Amino acid sequence: MPGNSIGRVLRLTTFGESHGPAVGGVLEGFPSSIHINKENIQERLKRRYPESLPGKTSRNEEDQIEWLSGIEDNCSTGGPIAFLVKNHNTRSSDYKNLEDVFRPSHADYSNYMKYGLQVKSGGGRSSGRETVARIVGGELARLLLIASDICVFAYVIRIGMTGINREKLQIDQAIIDKSPVYCPSEVSSIEMMDEIIRAKKNNDTLGGVIEIVVKNMVPGIGEPVFGKLNAELGKALLSIPSAKGIEFGLGFSSATYPGSQYNDQFTGGKQSGLTKTNHDGGIQGGISNGNDIVLRIAFKPLPSIGITQNTITSSGIAKEIKIKGRHDVCAVPRIVPVAEAMASLVLADQIILQGIHKQFL
Amino acid sequence: MPGNSIGRVLRLTTFGESHGPAVGGVLEGFPSSIHINKENIQERLKRRYPESLPGKTSRNEEDQIEWLSGIEDNCSTGGPIAFLVKNHNTRSSDYKNLEDVFRPSHADYSNYMKYGLQVKSGGGRSSGRETVARIVGGELARLLLIASDICVFAYVIRIGMTGINREKLQIDQAIIDKSPVYCPSEVSSIEMMDEIIRAKKNNDTLGGVIEIVVKNMVPGIGEPVFGKLNAELGKALLSIPSAKGIEFGLGFSSATYPGSQYNDQFTGGKQSGLTKTNHDGGIQGGISNGNDIVLRIAFKPLPSIGITQNTITSSGIAKEIKIKGRHDVCAVPRIVPVAEAMASLVLADQIILQGIHKQFL
Amino acid sequence: MPGNSIGRVLRLTTFGESHGPAVGGVLEGFPSSIHINKENIQERLKRRYPESLPGKTSRNEEDQIEWLSGIEDNCSTGGPIAFLVKNHNTRSSDYKNLEDVFRPSHADYSNYMKYGLQVKSGGGRSSGRETVARIVGGELARLLLIASDICVFAYVIRIGMTGINREKLQIDQAIIDKSPVYCPSEVSSIEMMDEIIRAKKNNDTLGGVIEIVVKNMVPGIGEPVFGKLNAELGKALLSIPSAKGIEFGLGFSSATYPGSQYNDQFTGGKQSGLTKTNHDGGIQGGISNGNDIVLRIAFKPLPSIGITQNTITSSGIAKEIKIKGRHDVCAVPRIVPVAEAMASLVLADQIILQGIHKQFL
Amino acid sequence: MPGNSIGRVLRLTTFGESHGPAVGGVLEGFPSSIHINKENIQERLKRRYPESLPGKTSRNEEDQIEWLSGIEDNCSTGGPIAFLVKNHNTRSSDYKNLEDVFRPSHADYSNYMKYGLQVKSGGGRSSGRETVARIVGGELARLLLIASDICVFAYVIRIGMTGINREKLQIDQAIIDKSPVYCPSEVSSIEMMDEIIRAKKNNDTLGGVIEIVVKNMVPGIGEPVFGKLNAELGKALLSIPSAKGIEFGLGFSSATYPGSQYNDQFTGGKQSGLTKTNHDGGIQGGISNGNDIVLRIAFKPLPSIGITQNTITSSGIAKEIKIKGRHDVCAVPRIVPVAEAMASLVLADQIILQGIHKQFL
Repeated sequence: MPGNSIGRVLRLTTFGESHGPAVGGVLEGFPSSIHINKENIQERLKRRYPESLPGKTSRNEEDQIEWLSGIEDNCSTGGPIAFLVKNHNTRSSDYKNLEDVFRPSHADYSNYMKYGLQVKSGGGRSSGRETVARIVGGELARLLLIASDICVFAYVIRIGMTGINREKLQIDQAIIDKSPVYCPSEVSSIEMMDEIIRAKKNNDTLGGVIEIVVKNMVPGIGEPVFGKLNAELGKALLSIPSAKGIEFGLGFSSATYPGSQYNDQFTGGKQSGLTKTNHDGGIQGGISNGNDIVLRIAFKPLPSIGITQNTITSSGIAKEIKIKGRHDVCAVPRIVPVAEAMASLVLADQIILQGIHKQFL
Repeated sequence: MPGNSIGRVLRLTTFGESHGPAVGGVLEGFPSSIHINKENIQERLKRRYPESLPGKTSRNEEDQIEWLSGIEDNCSTGGPIAFLVKNHNTRSSDYKNLEDVFRPSHADYSNYMKYGLQVKSGGGRSSGRETVARIVGGELARLLLIASDICVFAYVIRIGMTGINREKLQIDQAIIDKSPVYCPSEVSSIEMMDEIIRAKKNNDTLGGVIEIVVKNMVPGIGEPVFGKLNAELGKALLSIPSAKGIEFGLGFSSATYPGSQYNDQFTGGKQSGLTKTNHDGGIQGGISNGNDIVLRIAFKPLPSIGITQNTITSSGIAKEIKIKGRHDVCAVPRIVPVAEAMASLVLADQIILQGIHKQFL
Repeated sequence: MPGNSIGRVLRLTTFGESHGPAVGGVLEGFPSSIHINKENIQERLKRRYPESLPGKTSRNEEDQIEWLSGIEDNCSTGGPIAFLVKNHNTRSSDYKNLEDVFRPSHADYSNYMKYGLQVKSGGGRSSGRETVARIVGGELARLLLIASDICVFAYVIRIGMTGINREKLQIDQAIIDKSPVYCPSEVSSIEMMDEIIRAKKNNDTLGGVIEIVVKNMVPGIGEPVFGKLNAELGKALLSIPSAKGIEFGLGFSSATYPGSQYNDQFTGGKQSGLTKTNHDGGIQGGISNGNDIVLRIAFKPLPSIGITQNTITSSGIAKEIKIKGRHDVCAVPRIVPVAEAMASLVLADQIILQGIHKQFL
Repeated sequence: MPGNSIGRVLRLTTFGESHGPAVGGVLEGFPSSIHINKENIQERLKRRYPESLPGKTSRNEEDQIEWLSGIEDNCSTGGPIAFLVKNHNTRSSDYKNLEDVFRPSHADYSNYMKYGLQVKSGGGRSSGRETVARIVGGELARLLLIASDICVFAYVIRIGMTGINREKLQIDQAIIDKSPVYCPSEVSSIEMMDEIIRAKKNNDTLGGVIEIVVKNMVPGIGEPVFGKLNAELGKALLSIPSAKGIEFGLGFSSATYPGSQYNDQFTGGKQSGLTKTNHDGGIQGGISNGNDIVLRIAFKPLPSIGITQNTITSSGIAKEIKIKGRHDVCAVPRIVPVAEAMASLVLADQIILQGIHKQFL
């Protein structure tokens, strides 16, 4: 069933299994005559592999984007933009000892219950590798946001027990890019790396939290009922593998505030809509109000650990499992560009949709 | 733009403004030959007005469902089921003093930026009254879940600063229904009511947290990529007015666990798929695994407070505002049936979709 | 399953059975701030009942539109516009003798095979009455077309054996409106009425052909692959009850032309895109070229005849049937406003969609 | 805007330009555990190039399907099935003399008005080459129909002035396959080939008519209102390049019949639903009735002729054009597998959808 597409008019459809021939996507609804710098997108795809991230998988594929359609002379034609990235280095031997066994907290068991079969190809669609296509699609969406001067920042604010001090948080893309964990605090970066190294020693894994801030956001974007901007962002970001929660503005802590302290009162200054606080995180009634959009996504630790666990086979026989092969200690830094991509896809789609409306105003 | 519909094959479209003639909906894709007890649904709609909730709005409408189509002799025909609930008692005089002023943390300003106009009809589509149609649609969806023996429980676990002790939490629908705040703990119910009464004295408002537990859930429901079950539930529940966050299983705290302590290991007992823990909240890789689905949604305090606030007019003039009229102190208990309805709509839709798949297995 | 909606951004969802409480619809995606003259739409709905059409059903309902949402002070709010028309005079006794019998060439048998039940309510969704909601939705869509100066004309060019002479065809809305069969030729109108009167005497029924011409069409509307403008118009118009065929421009006769005589060569005159002929009917490669859109739809005769026919019961027992009750001799004139509505809905939706694209050009 | 996808649950998205790197598609919603014979589909793709068709394009590409995802060990996984066919032999020099000139009755002008640019890549998306992906998708859909014992036959019944005698028409797939024009009459095949040879001598082109018959059709498939089975088939088949009309059963001639002679009366024999005639072509009220589905599609002659024509440049300058390069005389035989594919995609999608419904009956 079509759960491989996202977006209403700017729609990304992805395909591909981790250990099949390729992963890729088709982006429909991309306007014509937009300049597309293929080298730049290729370069940005490398952000999936932070240079100095300790304990990252040794699978160093050269992810080469092959562009199949929709671009002529580095310019969009208005047709669907299709692309693929071939899978190299698919050592399915790594998965030999996993045959017929469900890895705990992986998607093996639930997929088996859905499809009635176990795919050999390294997790099938339920693999981090699927996110390659999200990033390429997201980079294309970003071109449309840039045209509206909108900037999407994504960065890590927690890994395991190490969170950053948000009091003095400065968002500086250069610092984020330099951090091996894409953290905007240099001090916290070091602490996070230490925690990753400790976990690696224990053959263990870590989760974390990513924050997204959207600056120069256009007001009036989103829908008032089921298609609320936070609902669309929620769906897109919760669809990232391992995501277990999302919150906007003050999020879960907003439940503890009285209205008198929570409400974002207007400054009444020259800039229309400016408020003293931004507790609502830039979205009210499902529609952007021009303040920065602020949200956070929580990710659980990677389920593949090098420690013996209890599991069962597809016939229900109890068994022990110790997962070998190439596995990250902490995927959260590598998810940063994915989160950025998903937010960009939603925002570009919604901005295009609002353009429809505006033509009659 | 069509943000008034939700669901892929079981699709609810809603309409209506708070102070217009009526609110209502159309539910498409509902199978034929299902018995529909109209009186029962009418009765369940009353749950929007918990009998003894202190500080609730005095707007005691008699919400009478008028069924327009799709039901013949209390049996579904397979056609779209349309219904409406007329609005009575629409004292738009209450809103007179609000004309041309944006209420802080309401959707007034963002709607104005989207539509270029201010509707007089009490918040337009951005009103809690819109949720009436969600509940009716959700009750119909629940009939399909009941046929699969699936039970959706929703209840309040926090109001303002008062949270429940989750250690000894027992889910008993009778206790929940008796609680004026739909809380499963009798002790916490009393504390929550006290907090509401205090807030009312201060002309203030409160937020809270609702938990949903789905029992007897069928495994194999959901999609592995963008259409993950948690993503669809996330979108549906974040579309409820005032929702600021959602989390599944351990949620945000999962970010702090190492994989070795987080992973849900299989018991290996007779019941296939049973795990020692349910940290993932019943969904893995976006697909249900047969464990209870567990999720929590955070709601901010209602923005309409009887305290003077700073705001602006549509011309950008600074002004003070003190909101009169009928307003709840805490909407969270009243949202409980709405949350239940949204979860039911998503689950029924997804189960129908999986039926497609199963016919070929 | 959701087959009750049409349109991508301007989407009409309809509901209601012929003999249930009401028929109606919800139009989503209608822009805000458009003036809506309710009286005018009410007046236009009367076109379903041509004053002097002989042999038309005696069911003279006063179809009163009740507007439920989306309009405030005769101005669209941007929210979904919901409306209903109550059914009066639903003499289901007329259908008593039809219980458990399938009327030949009606939708009784196929519906029974789909839904597993026979609805009592006069054909259920498969009734001409369902088209009331199409006309109301179409009239709203027409407001958007008028804003772009686009005019949709629909008229009858054949009833039974009587076709018009297309050589001298002049499209004059005043003449069409005066004709009891909505035919643009006064001579043919009289002949068609004679044929209808003869058929009525025989207790028989007649089909016919409707032509649609869209003047001042904007070029560049439509999609090049599956969403071709002719494909979308085709779907919408073939969804009208009794439609058995559609053709564009030269249509079926285009198959007999050599390319050298068929091709629409450019005049090269001042007006860009003007061609010497319009054999393609204004659409090339699925996209409008600025010439008039020209298409024709064929309708079979109404299946309800007052003549004995062979049928079966739901248990498969052979039986004879002679249909009583109120039935038209020829529905084609009454379908004219429906065809106009469906074309208007498609064109308005597609023009809105193209607006998306244009914002980036 | 997303006009590159078709189908509700079994959804094909296509991509690729005629002279770009590749054409291809993604088929979502294909059930798991279906055996897929890749060699067979590769073989069936050759039907696009009837061996002995006179006057067909000299572009003899070896269309090699590359399977990218969704298939493991010749078995569907339930994931999206992506595939591509590389373009070889893309002599864009053939198109040099066409630069900046609109070919009459092609999609050049309308595309220019939509996208604001002229693609160099041989017609962009508006090229017959795009249909390669339709055939591959259609062959996959056919696997699902075969599982329900449903057979789709497509064949040519007219080329230019040569139509077949339908009185004695026998549908024999072997005879169709042997005919260079995929005509079920051996006599007419020869006459059609003669007409093609004559047209080739004149540097001219020809259109024609394709008929589709669906045998062993399941009753109860389709939707009663906008999603009528004939409407969905209409959209899909009218989306084929050059299609100018479609009709079902008696089609346009049904307009001339009185109801008494048109209606399909029941035989009352043992086989439920059998009728004496099949004037409705197997669909009543938008839902299949178990009789053969019968429809015909008309195609205009190919617009590329080797004869001088009047045209204009993008600046509106009048010019003469004489199109060189590789072009077919008559595309209709080559469209036969495309028409079959589109019908198969619609039927498989609708049958899957009805499966949803049936699970509750």
